[in-house]
Amino acid sequence: MKKNNTAPISGMQELLPNSQAIFNEIKGKIERVYHSHGFQSIETPIIDRTSILLAKAGGDTEKQIYKVIKTSESAEQADQALRFDHTVPLARYVVEHQNELHFPFKVTQIGRNFRGERAQKGRFREFYQLDIDVIGREELSLEYDVEVVATAIDAIKSFLDEKICVRLSNRKILSGLLDELELSDLSDQIFSIIDHAEKVTPESTHQALLEVGISDAKIKILKDFINIRGSRSEVIKSLSDLNISNPAFKEGLSELNFVMELLEMQGFADSIAADMLIIRGLDYYTGSVFETILPNYRSIGSVCSGGRYENLTSNFSDQKMPGVGISIGLTRLFSVLNEYQLLKTTIGKPIDVAIIPFSSEDFSFSYQIAKKLRNLNQSVDIIFLDKKLKNKLNHAAKIANHLILIGEEESKTGLVKVKNLDTGNSLSFEEYISLKNAK
Amino acid sequence: MKKNNTAPISGMQELLPNSQAIFNEIKGKIERVYHSHGFQSIETPIIDRTSILLAKAGGDTEKQIYKVIKTSESAEQADQALRFDHTVPLARYVVEHQNELHFPFKVTQIGRNFRGERAQKGRFREFYQLDIDVIGREELSLEYDVEVVATAIDAIKSFLDEKICVRLSNRKILSGLLDELELSDLSDQIFSIIDHAEKVTPESTHQALLEVGISDAKIKILKDFINIRGSRSEVIKSLSDLNISNPAFKEGLSELNFVMELLEMQGFADSIAADMLIIRGLDYYTGSVFETILPNYRSIGSVCSGGRYENLTSNFSDQKMPGVGISIGLTRLFSVLNEYQLLKTTIGKPIDVAIIPFSSEDFSFSYQIAKKLRNLNQSVDIIFLDKKLKNKLNHAAKIANHLILIGEEESKTGLVKVKNLDTGNSLSFEEYISLKNAK
Repeated sequence: MKKNNTAPISGMQELLPNSQAIFNEIKGKIERVYHSHGFQSIETPIIDRTSILLAKAGGDTEKQIYKVIKTSESAEQADQALRFDHTVPLARYVVEHQNELHFPFKVTQIGRNFRGERAQKGRFREFYQLDIDVIGREELSLEYDVEVVATAIDAIKSFLDEKICVRLSNRKILSGLLDELELSDLSDQIFSIIDHAEKVTPESTHQALLEVGISDAKIKILKDFINIRGSRSEVIKSLSDLNISNPAFKEGLSELNFVMELLEMQGFADSIAADMLIIRGLDYYTGSVFETILPNYRSIGSVCSGGRYENLTSNFSDQKMPGVGISIGLTRLFSVLNEYQLLKTTIGKPIDVAIIPFSSEDFSFSYQIAKKLRNLNQSVDIIFLDKKLKNKLNHAAKIANHLILIGEEESKTGLVKVKNLDTGNSLSFEEYISLKNAK
Repeated sequence: MKKNNTAPISGMQELLPNSQAIFNEIKGKIERVYHSHGFQSIETPIIDRTSILLAKAGGDTEKQIYKVIKTSESAEQADQALRFDHTVPLARYVVEHQNELHFPFKVTQIGRNFRGERAQKGRFREFYQLDIDVIGREELSLEYDVEVVATAIDAIKSFLDEKICVRLSNRKILSGLLDELELSDLSDQIFSIIDHAEKVTPESTHQALLEVGISDAKIKILKDFINIRGSRSEVIKSLSDLNISNPAFKEGLSELNFVMELLEMQGFADSIAADMLIIRGLDYYTGSVFETILPNYRSIGSVCSGGRYENLTSNFSDQKMPGVGISIGLTRLFSVLNEYQLLKTTIGKPIDVAIIPFSSEDFSFSYQIAKKLRNLNQSVDIIFLDKKLKNKLNHAAKIANHLILIGEEESKTGLVKVKNLDTGNSLSFEEYISLKNAK
């Protein structure tokens, strides 16, 4: 009988071993794609100075941050907190270590971040983020915007056999439009309203824009603008047809065109679309912005997003360091893909081979057999239950794909059979080994 | 110029990319050995209820635990904290999920734990622990004590080419001896004195035992006892020669003999020794205890330790769940091995191949070449610096092992050379590919 509430805290993901194995497999695949695209791994501490973590933030972040205190401290003394994303610690890291890094610095961070959000379905307080970023010193070529999107597409396709669509825009386009419409002083509010437009009805977006004090004529222009989406050629034509001469608008348009053209060059035309609704609320983005959806499962929302920030490190250094990055929120993604039964995986039972020795006389030979299999990277469990053979066989059937029984005869002759617990078929040990060697 | 202190908090390990790659390589090797021995991976949340984490603890643990609070909370409201080891969350996990797990449950946990220790050399506040445990329901065969030690030896040998020695004992032996000497009521103090004996002079151990109120005659017996160490046969003989009839003593002796015999059977005789000094301070160990040292670098201390606990879950459940486990503290170990220059690794520069396109006309072919290499799991970086060729070549030489230049001729003919940046030699692309394929 339980004496305590042993459930994890709500908002935490805690998986059973089989699900954990699938989660780890996906994480490993994404990691390998990141590595193949030349991103180097770093890890920053989970605990950092509150003054660093909140140097820029405000709003929700400040409310959601977890502060840490030692037993002897009071809440007021708390000057340390848990990182809530990888971006702020990365900014600290590149400033701290800039003389030992080579720029452009292509970096990946994979780990858990923490936000004390109100627990609700699909929201996690501890969550894995799998980030890639490219950081430049003074300047960073636009080709790296292309590179992070290409890497993200490859990463998602490595574990998901579904149509995906990266929706791209460039914040300079809307900024330029607002400038042209003489609405720049309302840009924070307008960016926020457009950022939320997909979550509400067109009427309430209209109403929100009215309430900010925008004229009907300009609201019509904005509403037409945010409905512009499609292939590169369609969107570039629609935006050019607006005949806006504002330099920021034109620069954004040209950047968007360039980024999409290079993605098409790599064969990603089917996985990308330009979409003027994409804003990415966070105000540090200054150029390209991306969000990724599964068009056949739109309710899942964005599975991977990011963008370009002109100056990552402005709070920590006078050195200008532009960057571009993208992040996969794997904890939430894993949870929703599970729910939609979209996780295809080859993982069966966790153990490749269970070995059951009949008696302690058979231990020595069992260890030899196990060693040979382990040297081939097979996962091997020798079952030492102090129970009847029937119980041992039951246990083996639950955890393992293959079974080896080792008794007096096997120990003496050295001849061993490997039984497939799904099909019931047996191979000789040598046949099994050569099969695994061939892989 | 820096505007802020951007160093990580003291007591945190923050590595440069090259060191991080070595750290990750070692972690991966240990993980693979754990997997090959049939341990299944789980991850528990880093934040848990303070009532769970401190259900058993006391002393240092309580002083060192990091509590977490949200902005709106006061320190008194803090009922959540960061896990300080993997064992307590594991106990909660197996109680919570016991009906969905198969016992004996062979489990591995790899992740960071947190202790607000006073920062000093070799002590970390955030540190990776790589644990394996086997948990039984009601009972757990002694063979699993053997299994965790064998796995630990294989794990350490997977990345360290040094002599190692697992020092083994069994707490029942000393318990039985104290019972025989009618010192059981002083056992907490005596265990603690012996646990510290290696860190102080023999005289101060003698003094400490005197101060507890033990007679000279009994101190002599204890001092002779803790000097018993060596091979299985030597130690078993020395302990048997003490002619102690206490049942706990005899049981401990028999268990130690059994565990070592099965380790010898697996060819580990050279890597193990019985040693009556080994106690493992933590009072939840009840049988086998292990510590691992590098005999040629004794000052490093224990690199891997663990033991048997008769009831893991007594604070959370009435169900008896014995376990045995072992843990590698990789953050500290990595730091000291680095210091002693004991890390041998094959990792050179982080990128396998850098590709430099001469102009944007060459992007398309560069992407094709990159894709072919990435499909072979090669780490490839296309260099898009807006700089002179000389700067690009410099950048490539710093980060990559091989270089491919792609200009008009390469794009037209499709003929590409792969230059080894260490030797200066070149291969054709096809030769390079077939070399990598052969691996």
